Amino acid sequence: MPAEEPARPTGKAGPEGVLLGDYARLDVDRRRRTGVPEVVFGEGKTPEQIFTLLAELRAHDPAAPALATRCPAQVLDEAAGQFPGEAVHTDPVAATVTVGTLPPGRGRVLVLTAGTTDLRVARECTATLAVLGVHADLVADVGVAGLGRLLARLEDLRAAECVIVVAGMDGALPSVVAGLVSVPAIGVPTSVGYGVAAGGLAAAASMLASCSPGLVVVNIDNGFGAAAHAAKIIRAVHR
Amino acid sequence: MPAEEPARPTGKAGPEGVLLGDYARLDVDRRRRTGVPEVVFGEGKTPEQIFTLLAELRAHDPAAPALATRCPAQVLDEAAGQFPGEAVHTDPVAATVTVGTLPPGRGRVLVLTAGTTDLRVARECTATLAVLGVHADLVADVGVAGLGRLLARLEDLRAAECVIVVAGMDGALPSVVAGLVSVPAIGVPTSVGYGVAAGGLAAAASMLASCSPGLVVVNIDNGFGAAAHAAKIIRAVHR
Amino acid sequence: MPAEEPARPTGKAGPEGVLLGDYARLDVDRRRRTGVPEVVFGEGKTPEQIFTLLAELRAHDPAAPALATRCPAQVLDEAAGQFPGEAVHTDPVAATVTVGTLPPGRGRVLVLTAGTTDLRVARECTATLAVLGVHADLVADVGVAGLGRLLARLEDLRAAECVIVVAGMDGALPSVVAGLVSVPAIGVPTSVGYGVAAGGLAAAASMLASCSPGLVVVNIDNGFGAAAHAAKIIRAVHR
Amino acid sequence: MPAEEPARPTGKAGPEGVLLGDYARLDVDRRRRTGVPEVVFGEGKTPEQIFTLLAELRAHDPAAPALATRCPAQVLDEAAGQFPGEAVHTDPVAATVTVGTLPPGRGRVLVLTAGTTDLRVARECTATLAVLGVHADLVADVGVAGLGRLLARLEDLRAAECVIVVAGMDGALPSVVAGLVSVPAIGVPTSVGYGVAAGGLAAAASMLASCSPGLVVVNIDNGFGAAAHAAKIIRAVHR
Amino acid sequence: MPAEEPARPTGKAGPEGVLLGDYARLDVDRRRRTGVPEVVFGEGKTPEQIFTLLAELRAHDPAAPALATRCPAQVLDEAAGQFPGEAVHTDPVAATVTVGTLPPGRGRVLVLTAGTTDLRVARECTATLAVLGVHADLVADVGVAGLGRLLARLEDLRAAECVIVVAGMDGALPSVVAGLVSVPAIGVPTSVGYGVAAGGLAAAASMLASCSPGLVVVNIDNGFGAAAHAAKIIRAVHR
Amino acid sequence: MPAEEPARPTGKAGPEGVLLGDYARLDVDRRRRTGVPEVVFGEGKTPEQIFTLLAELRAHDPAAPALATRCPAQVLDEAAGQFPGEAVHTDPVAATVTVGTLPPGRGRVLVLTAGTTDLRVARECTATLAVLGVHADLVADVGVAGLGRLLARLEDLRAAECVIVVAGMDGALPSVVAGLVSVPAIGVPTSVGYGVAAGGLAAAASMLASCSPGLVVVNIDNGFGAAAHAAKIIRAVHR
Amino acid sequence: MPAEEPARPTGKAGPEGVLLGDYARLDVDRRRRTGVPEVVFGEGKTPEQIFTLLAELRAHDPAAPALATRCPAQVLDEAAGQFPGEAVHTDPVAATVTVGTLPPGRGRVLVLTAGTTDLRVARECTATLAVLGVHADLVADVGVAGLGRLLARLEDLRAAECVIVVAGMDGALPSVVAGLVSVPAIGVPTSVGYGVAAGGLAAAASMLASCSPGLVVVNIDNGFGAAAHAAKIIRAVHR
Amino acid sequence: MPAEEPARPTGKAGPEGVLLGDYARLDVDRRRRTGVPEVVFGEGKTPEQIFTLLAELRAHDPAAPALATRCPAQVLDEAAGQFPGEAVHTDPVAATVTVGTLPPGRGRVLVLTAGTTDLRVARECTATLAVLGVHADLVADVGVAGLGRLLARLEDLRAAECVIVVAGMDGALPSVVAGLVSVPAIGVPTSVGYGVAAGGLAAAASMLASCSPGLVVVNIDNGFGAAAHAAKIIRAVHR
Repeated sequence: MPAEEPARPTGKAGPEGVLLGDYARLDVDRRRRTGVPEVVFGEGKTPEQIFTLLAELRAHDPAAPALATRCPAQVLDEAAGQFPGEAVHTDPVAATVTVGTLPPGRGRVLVLTAGTTDLRVARECTATLAVLGVHADLVADVGVAGLGRLLARLEDLRAAECVIVVAGMDGALPSVVAGLVSVPAIGVPTSVGYGVAAGGLAAAASMLASCSPGLVVVNIDNGFGAAAHAAKIIRAVHR
Repeated sequence: MPAEEPARPTGKAGPEGVLLGDYARLDVDRRRRTGVPEVVFGEGKTPEQIFTLLAELRAHDPAAPALATRCPAQVLDEAAGQFPGEAVHTDPVAATVTVGTLPPGRGRVLVLTAGTTDLRVARECTATLAVLGVHADLVADVGVAGLGRLLARLEDLRAAECVIVVAGMDGALPSVVAGLVSVPAIGVPTSVGYGVAAGGLAAAASMLASCSPGLVVVNIDNGFGAAAHAAKIIRAVHR
Repeated sequence: MPAEEPARPTGKAGPEGVLLGDYARLDVDRRRRTGVPEVVFGEGKTPEQIFTLLAELRAHDPAAPALATRCPAQVLDEAAGQFPGEAVHTDPVAATVTVGTLPPGRGRVLVLTAGTTDLRVARECTATLAVLGVHADLVADVGVAGLGRLLARLEDLRAAECVIVVAGMDGALPSVVAGLVSVPAIGVPTSVGYGVAAGGLAAAASMLASCSPGLVVVNIDNGFGAAAHAAKIIRAVHR
Repeated sequence: MPAEEPARPTGKAGPEGVLLGDYARLDVDRRRRTGVPEVVFGEGKTPEQIFTLLAELRAHDPAAPALATRCPAQVLDEAAGQFPGEAVHTDPVAATVTVGTLPPGRGRVLVLTAGTTDLRVARECTATLAVLGVHADLVADVGVAGLGRLLARLEDLRAAECVIVVAGMDGALPSVVAGLVSVPAIGVPTSVGYGVAAGGLAAAASMLASCSPGLVVVNIDNGFGAAAHAAKIIRAVHR
Repeated sequence: MPAEEPARPTGKAGPEGVLLGDYARLDVDRRRRTGVPEVVFGEGKTPEQIFTLLAELRAHDPAAPALATRCPAQVLDEAAGQFPGEAVHTDPVAATVTVGTLPPGRGRVLVLTAGTTDLRVARECTATLAVLGVHADLVADVGVAGLGRLLARLEDLRAAECVIVVAGMDGALPSVVAGLVSVPAIGVPTSVGYGVAAGGLAAAASMLASCSPGLVVVNIDNGFGAAAHAAKIIRAVHR
Repeated sequence: MPAEEPARPTGKAGPEGVLLGDYARLDVDRRRRTGVPEVVFGEGKTPEQIFTLLAELRAHDPAAPALATRCPAQVLDEAAGQFPGEAVHTDPVAATVTVGTLPPGRGRVLVLTAGTTDLRVARECTATLAVLGVHADLVADVGVAGLGRLLARLEDLRAAECVIVVAGMDGALPSVVAGLVSVPAIGVPTSVGYGVAAGGLAAAASMLASCSPGLVVVNIDNGFGAAAHAAKIIRAVHR
Repeated sequence: MPAEEPARPTGKAGPEGVLLGDYARLDVDRRRRTGVPEVVFGEGKTPEQIFTLLAELRAHDPAAPALATRCPAQVLDEAAGQFPGEAVHTDPVAATVTVGTLPPGRGRVLVLTAGTTDLRVARECTATLAVLGVHADLVADVGVAGLGRLLARLEDLRAAECVIVVAGMDGALPSVVAGLVSVPAIGVPTSVGYGVAAGGLAAAASMLASCSPGLVVVNIDNGFGAAAHAAKIIRAVHR
Repeated sequence: MPAEEPARPTGKAGPEGVLLGDYARLDVDRRRRTGVPEVVFGEGKTPEQIFTLLAELRAHDPAAPALATRCPAQVLDEAAGQFPGEAVHTDPVAATVTVGTLPPGRGRVLVLTAGTTDLRVARECTATLAVLGVHADLVADVGVAGLGRLLARLEDLRAAECVIVVAGMDGALPSVVAGLVSVPAIGVPTSVGYGVAAGGLAAAASMLASCSPGLVVVNIDNGFGAAAHAAKIIRAVHR
């Protein structure tokens, strides 16, 4: 059996991270270094692990709320009970949990979705922006099959400081939006779709190949990543 | 948390769509604009959402029946009870529900399947055509492994105004049919198959690469889309 | 060496086709059977073969012009000289040659392109429609990066009986167009693009996955196939 | 032959674009709408077409320089002669031509490359930024195989307002950089590589799947697109 | 520099093969062991290498003709001059050269092609069968777009002892043929096609997924391999 | 709802097949035409459908046993009870059911597997051969990681009239075997494997690309198809 | 039904392997030949089969412990009870069981993981190394998003004789590590990830395309294979 | 235009590398750090760049020879003239150039190829090993289609300290070899092949999925990388 390193006492942090058991090395320095704190990716973790990681993040960085994404239902149900003195927000659509008081929201990000089932990803986006102290508005179900729905919101589009466009299937909406606005636009492909669109690769490829200049793209279903990039932009603008 | 737009009272429709909760924006203008009404794609929706959307579609466009595809079993079971005064049709093979009186069927579309397990997709096709007011005949299991089965129906093939050919596995049947008829032919690849055919990409690629001129293709398992295209053709012919 | 079948005298036609040398078996019955005559696919053929095949098509079906697509430059240059008594049209952008008087154009098909470099495919489309006796209008370079260009042509769009939308890169234009019109819409993905769009698969997948009901798709760069399908629709409408 | 629209006199611009011959519809409104002017993508165009398009862009928007990317050698050689009274810059590594006086550069973007052969894409990036009025520094060949080269430039990295990281092969550099800086980071995969990395898909996938939060990605070899996004950020910051 | 093994004198053969220079180890035992002699795959070899290898094969197995496939034009031109006392056959369509008297042809294999451009592969097939002492008939251009061409040859089909079906594009012909005959059927996908069919993967997948029982498949463009399998069958039947 | 054809009375057979309900059209002519009777592919069918189809096959062709592959456990359990007067064989490893007396086995086919988990496919092979009247021997787990296991069976290999080689993972065994024997060899890739081998495409590609002449390949996991081809060979040899 | 070979009495071993039932042929000669004993791959096997195979391995090679990987939970739970007199180690994270006394560990291998969820694969690695008599240290969660965690362990890295780097997602860590150390480095891609990284192909491609010379790669999730290679290196060094 | 860093005088080296012009940053510290010096990858570089880089490598590390791989013919022809006082070795098959006296070769690596056309990659391997001071033997053309050729060299195989197996097409040889030897084995897939094997992905996948424990793999055609790994092993053994 391998010789493993002894667990360091919780609370001891530095550039080498904080060792939890033998399985995690929390990068508690990340918020200082990159502006985005380490976040718990809940998929494939036990509720116990998720709660431990959230508690450690809170302990090492009390000034910022801690976020867990892709949480199983049990975590959403028990989160409030696990952190009795804390402000706890859960979003069952996004499957996110936040622990700690949310900072006031600066700036204005607009999050659009092409369809109803893209909402899960869009709300991971807005939950992350809330944790990062960015104000966001969400406008759902304005896909290109009914262009009037988007054009009716053109004023809102142009008032935003950054636009995040969430779409599965054909992935066409971000290209259309990026041709209409002058602010930075981020496309988030989703795994919504079937046949050639199953898994989201068709949407991702369409967005990457966009003929609209300056559209950037994150991984499929990565609402968190789009929010992190948007927050960096908003912070730079509102410095 | 993001600031979301206030729900507008149900029944208020325009080019910007009808907002339902914060998750859907029904494109109630679609039938006027494209000839095909918005349809509820049931996959990934709760029974409550499906019934709400069907009811809204009925409320905004009482002249046309409302259709939901890819419905879970619970929706098929409870549909009649949810719409007491309405004509309700359910097809458990296709997993479709229609609410409202079906219009009389015009024209003549022939829907063929290569195999028995393609029937699920073919019946989504015929259910959609019924909603769109198009008459359809269905001939199942005439794949190219036993060509005699197809050649025995040649007369029917040539009497149709549009032919929809549903096939998984090798996807060869649409190419053969398109070489035999002078009316528009639509290929529908299905996810029926295993190994290199798993998911339907082999069938889709074979149909797209067809050596028979004029064969057009829709997404894998998209019986609804093939029916929508066929209905546009039939309407143009019978104007 | 294999025993090959003796060449039958040119001019002898039937369901079994017309044997040319040992390499081709012209399907001279195709126009009667499917409404679309056999066409010479020029790629990979010598100029001699292309001219021989065009001459045979003319000889077996004098009532219809003969078409060759994807012709090398030499064929375009020499075509008129090869068929002295005939009306010969060549299109260097499309790389097509037609021999014989074009029939009058019925109906109204609108061919759109997303970009300038999609023109090659769009003009294969219009050359084919001309041979099949269909009237077509061509509107180039109205991609979604500048949506105003498309919306300025909405009236033309809605006046057409069938719309063909040619696009590479993100493949988004056909989805937008299909959400705006009630006539049959055909998407033609092109190989225009680079990176994830190289070869046209991203555009093809986006079109197949379209959220706009009833959009149908042909193979990448297959302007001929889209035209053949459109011609079948126009013929059905104008019977 | 299709009926095509009559060419409008050059100089007539509006939301519908400016029609050039029958092949292009310049989106001269794009800079006002999106902040990024239309740019000539030179690949697959003749020198005549490229020069015509550059001249039109100059004529419709004299306040901004015009840019052509992916130009053939002939265009680079003849560009200065074609625009006698204009400031003309050509970059043979990037294959770009700019016509018109470059605006002063605001902000500070840092462009990194993993290897020497990624330089072609990085310089398309810096040429575009120059046209868009953004100051950029370029640091080449700091790939992860020799991490010391990157760590030696950490101070420069952290002084930038936006970082663009260009990498082929394993695509690992952007993930490393995005973990070190707090400003927005953009990954540009390149087609540099062979075997499983041929064409750049491996690099693109690695960047999209980055474990560093907030890294966004553009199409393979799309230095222009990364610059357009970075310019939108810089403009927002320096409003 | 590596230490390489000394070249053994030509003519010394055994299970370990015959070493030629430092680059080849002719498996001169192969015909005894597998019934199919080693064959020279000409692609990527110099004319000198091809001629040397053919000469060695002749020297080690004078009872059998030697075959080279995929030969450059220079080899076809010079072959007869290189082997003055030998019977030399070249086929410019197949790009094959055979040296030595062909054995009498036993059995009856029928080779079909879907299109004209598949002929190159089909003739590699018939050239190989000739070398292996098998009689073959070739029927070209009977693709499924014009089914009458195939049905007119049904008698020939059923008289064969083995059928090889060569097809690119949709790859549909082998499935149709395998449903009509009781003898072993072999599908040969070709790289003929464009778009989704480019390279032949679509045809190969369609054949492997065939709904016709017992169809077997070889690599794309591998006419040689199909012939080798057919020859093993014919030998077993005519033992 | 579509107008469907009236069910014909069971027992009425011809080239057009036997219609069962509206979902199947049994090709009862197939055994006469191709030597291989129609077989019930059980996947995705209900036990009732499988038993009905088996009964129909028995009724139309009493001289031959009927076979169902890929049967759910319930079918294996109930099969004997469903056909009281018949000889019923079930193989739980292969998931096959045969109804009717098996014919005596002619010829000698050797079925090899690379690993233990390939056995499921290999036994579908042997069950099919038994139905088709062919004798088969099965030698499991002789993969190339321990070549001695294969070389110890060389005599058996060379005594066979046809060899079927079943392998997942690297798919290397069929290439090795095909280089050792002179009889026809068939490779069956399996979906056994993980990572790059998941689903069987790596094994299939390796077999298709084999450097051993004459190896032919069927779809992944298609033990039935390999058996059908082998049976055609054995019948031709033992005519 | 196929004629199968009679089971040989357990314990009879030779180059042809040991036949167990009709499903396995244990390669008991493998340790002598390759230095790595046959190991039981538990996936898809019943607990009974796994225990039988472990017992046989113990019986034929009492000097070495027997290992089973990818075991279901039931096997982990019952293992100790099945081998009463033996030393039994189970690792629920790795899903491994070892039976027999572990040899003393020679050498020094360092196993790194990029993230917490890669631990499953890393511990399959360390469990295998323990069986093969190699000492290993495990350092988890040092991915490139927080480079400080890795750089803090540089001394450990350089003290190792071989480094195994386990990473999913972007697969960037092995490239960074291989650029820092002079000992052999092995990359193990994992299936950890989603979107373009789902299944591990993105990580595998990034590692294979590494710009760090000498990095070698094994299949996705193949901790066992990396350990086997490392053990061969350690044995060569400590001979 | 971007502000670029001033070129530092040649000869100034440190952890940040040596800047050449604005395009390269030679990692002259690499040999000390990783045991493998930086090597010039010639593809896509001009002869001038290649010669400059070789000269810099020689200047900074006079104790070691400098290597350039994938050199164009002009570089091979002119290399000796460019380095008058130096020992220069060129290998036209491998397309490599070495400048400087080769160190004596330690250890024993055996490099095998499956076919003749794999030789190009194998010789890049042996040229690299020579530069790294490792002795290598090369045995070409022992692919699995004629297993006797490999078995005849079994003694050599087992005498080696490390085996590198180079194969395209089916990629089967490395799996067979890795099952026969106890020393570390490295598979190098090559791009030799056509159809499903084109580009080398089939070979790479087969090797990664090998059932032979401990086989590791490098990128397609990466003879250099395999040699670098082997050299690290040999150095560890012969310390």
